[in-house]
Amino acid sequence: MKIIVVGAVAGGATVASQVRRVLPDAEIIVYEKSRDMSFANCGLPYYLGNIIESRNHLVQASAASFKEKKDISVKLYHEVTAVDTAAKTVTVLDHLTGQTSTDSYDKLILSPGGRAVRLPQLTDSDITFPVRTLEDTDIIEQHIEKKEVKNALIIGAGYISIEMIENLKNRGLNITLLHRSEQLLKTMDAQFLPHLTKLLTDHEIRLQLNDEVDTIDNGTVTFKSGLTGQYELIIEAVGITPNTEFLKNSSIELNDKGYIKTDHYFGTTAEDVYALGDAIETFYRHTGDRTTVALAWGAHRAASLIAEHLAGEKQAFQGLLGTNILRLFDHAIASVGISEAEVRNYDALQVTFDQYPTARYMPQSHPMHVSVYYRRDNRQILRACFFGKQGVDKRVDVIATAMMNNMTVDDLKDIEIAYAPPFSSPKDIINMIGYRAE
Amino acid sequence: MKIIVVGAVAGGATVASQVRRVLPDAEIIVYEKSRDMSFANCGLPYYLGNIIESRNHLVQASAASFKEKKDISVKLYHEVTAVDTAAKTVTVLDHLTGQTSTDSYDKLILSPGGRAVRLPQLTDSDITFPVRTLEDTDIIEQHIEKKEVKNALIIGAGYISIEMIENLKNRGLNITLLHRSEQLLKTMDAQFLPHLTKLLTDHEIRLQLNDEVDTIDNGTVTFKSGLTGQYELIIEAVGITPNTEFLKNSSIELNDKGYIKTDHYFGTTAEDVYALGDAIETFYRHTGDRTTVALAWGAHRAASLIAEHLAGEKQAFQGLLGTNILRLFDHAIASVGISEAEVRNYDALQVTFDQYPTARYMPQSHPMHVSVYYRRDNRQILRACFFGKQGVDKRVDVIATAMMNNMTVDDLKDIEIAYAPPFSSPKDIINMIGYRAE
Repeated sequence: MKIIVVGAVAGGATVASQVRRVLPDAEIIVYEKSRDMSFANCGLPYYLGNIIESRNHLVQASAASFKEKKDISVKLYHEVTAVDTAAKTVTVLDHLTGQTSTDSYDKLILSPGGRAVRLPQLTDSDITFPVRTLEDTDIIEQHIEKKEVKNALIIGAGYISIEMIENLKNRGLNITLLHRSEQLLKTMDAQFLPHLTKLLTDHEIRLQLNDEVDTIDNGTVTFKSGLTGQYELIIEAVGITPNTEFLKNSSIELNDKGYIKTDHYFGTTAEDVYALGDAIETFYRHTGDRTTVALAWGAHRAASLIAEHLAGEKQAFQGLLGTNILRLFDHAIASVGISEAEVRNYDALQVTFDQYPTARYMPQSHPMHVSVYYRRDNRQILRACFFGKQGVDKRVDVIATAMMNNMTVDDLKDIEIAYAPPFSSPKDIINMIGYRAE
Repeated sequence: MKIIVVGAVAGGATVASQVRRVLPDAEIIVYEKSRDMSFANCGLPYYLGNIIESRNHLVQASAASFKEKKDISVKLYHEVTAVDTAAKTVTVLDHLTGQTSTDSYDKLILSPGGRAVRLPQLTDSDITFPVRTLEDTDIIEQHIEKKEVKNALIIGAGYISIEMIENLKNRGLNITLLHRSEQLLKTMDAQFLPHLTKLLTDHEIRLQLNDEVDTIDNGTVTFKSGLTGQYELIIEAVGITPNTEFLKNSSIELNDKGYIKTDHYFGTTAEDVYALGDAIETFYRHTGDRTTVALAWGAHRAASLIAEHLAGEKQAFQGLLGTNILRLFDHAIASVGISEAEVRNYDALQVTFDQYPTARYMPQSHPMHVSVYYRRDNRQILRACFFGKQGVDKRVDVIATAMMNNMTVDDLKDIEIAYAPPFSSPKDIINMIGYRAE
């Protein structure tokens, strides 16, 4: 069997490895359009923050090691530009030679990922960079050192922006966060915005909200508000878009935002074609609603399930919950379930309160902010969001486990959380959600 | 309705409060044989370690505040010495006056707790103390200050001993841990003993295992091994025994170790008599086996369920998992499920490995030790144990949530743990248990 994988970052490299594990005799070829394979993309901000000591730690495998250890051919700088699902072939452009060739597959696995959205006003700026690939990161690192960067403008208020704020601040830079609205971090409940704003302000992050870049002239930015500022570095993190243009003339269906539609086996609408990673549309486990979740857990789970499916096991994927977390200085922000906007499609109730994550008498214990939405009719948990210093990760993961088992908000009273004063209370936050729900 | 509660520490005080919440008109009387009600017993070691700044933080309520705020009568120094379930009366000894009286109940709730087992060799020692009550703690605190204690001997290797080691060491004392066997901390898998021993030794705790006190002469202890040592303080924490002697002539059935047998509603074998807290026998949620778990979570859950039962709601208790955790210096040790000894009653398989609790490239990340036992036939999780620096609490709580939903070891692959480099890996430890199980 000949298997072609498109993309060699998290999803592509992992699925290739998993397929090799279950199909020792398959021919596996991975096409990657850019320079690097299998780098730790979630670690890039921490590398720029000098938290990760060595760049080597970001590089998880090389084409040579994949060939030698796993007999997988990884072709870098090779971009798949078209797929013919009838002929079962792909068209491949070699960026080093400029030559185009055709390759055939028995099974095709798409993991093209996404790329950073770029603002047209900043196209010509040579101090503006996205943080998406290891190449981006190398360029930013060199830029910070060479230009002795002191002042950075970070545009956007999603994950990457928030992680870059922490890391560039830890590196000693002055940071301004620019966002076109005042709703920072859409994965977070809006009611926690004052806490997030205070946290940023306490760490001397300058917030410039409801504003956008108008023009840039070298390091001088003029904003639409009329304000101007001087920066040596601009990080552009206003969103990602799926790298699926090469599929537009194929029989592989995309949704209206360009994400690849997938079924319960990560199959696409074309036979013998699978897809995983940031460029796919899948579904929520607990509601069945369609969604896109550009996070690593789902890509890794998909890689295993696709490999097992190719090996003949028909274990269906049960869907995602979108569990996510983010560190910001000494705090963490996490959520699970449908978005707060999507909650409005349901007749939902909310329970919200603050509680200490450890025994209250323990030092350095700070109240955690809690918000949980659940359906009025069957009391199913739709979404939970946590903001706090300690133990946020624990609470969101327990709720995720509860949600995947269709526990009601009331059932949370019965979860036996391990108690000792440094870790919890005899009635933990998780239990209190159940006790406090109307 | 007249309700008598026996015992006013965690279980008794909580159940009295919960009953007041659902039965505003009931007459509620709580008898407590000793000086204090409703103190934070789990916080006592941390108070002695000077971690908890004020003794006031340990006192959660007083008889006066219970009377004023909740109209609950708490009678301190009043010991219930007998129960007549036919006449529905209790005999009460007032320790201040020496007088005995009789009181009648419609419903009786027993929360007598346990007391420290005392070694006969140490009966006459005036430097030897248990750590069970706030009174004990006050005496130890005064003793440490007055005698300028430098060297302490801690006897026993359970929870209290381990917590006292951390706290007295943090206070600057030299600590020797004495245990009659080499199996420290029975709630922990035996295979982790070398890690625990190393952790104690790294913190300059002297271990004296397979030995016992033979005689004591003032501060000079002669051990059965023939060794002798000088100490100014001895902490005796060799176990607890239930305070149930007063029930021996009643119709309330005890098990062969003296624990009160309870049913799915925390009812005893006598009508209109409930029991909760450290002195009861209950059952494991996942196996149905009978067990005793002297931990706070179960007492608090029982308090709510008993109150709801009295108010007419018939929600059955689903049993305990015994989820437990312990901090020791910068480490945590946790387990859930039946004990490792009880696992031997099952045809069980084990999965065991070490994994980083965060992205491996993050600084200060240390591998966590993992052990999970599951049934060979239906792959049900029987027990899990974790030993590590970060995120031990999270993993044990997620496994507890999985176990209460009867998830198999394989189902753990599907738990969507929130991933960001400071908190997890794209395949978290929880998922890896599922992937690595045979």
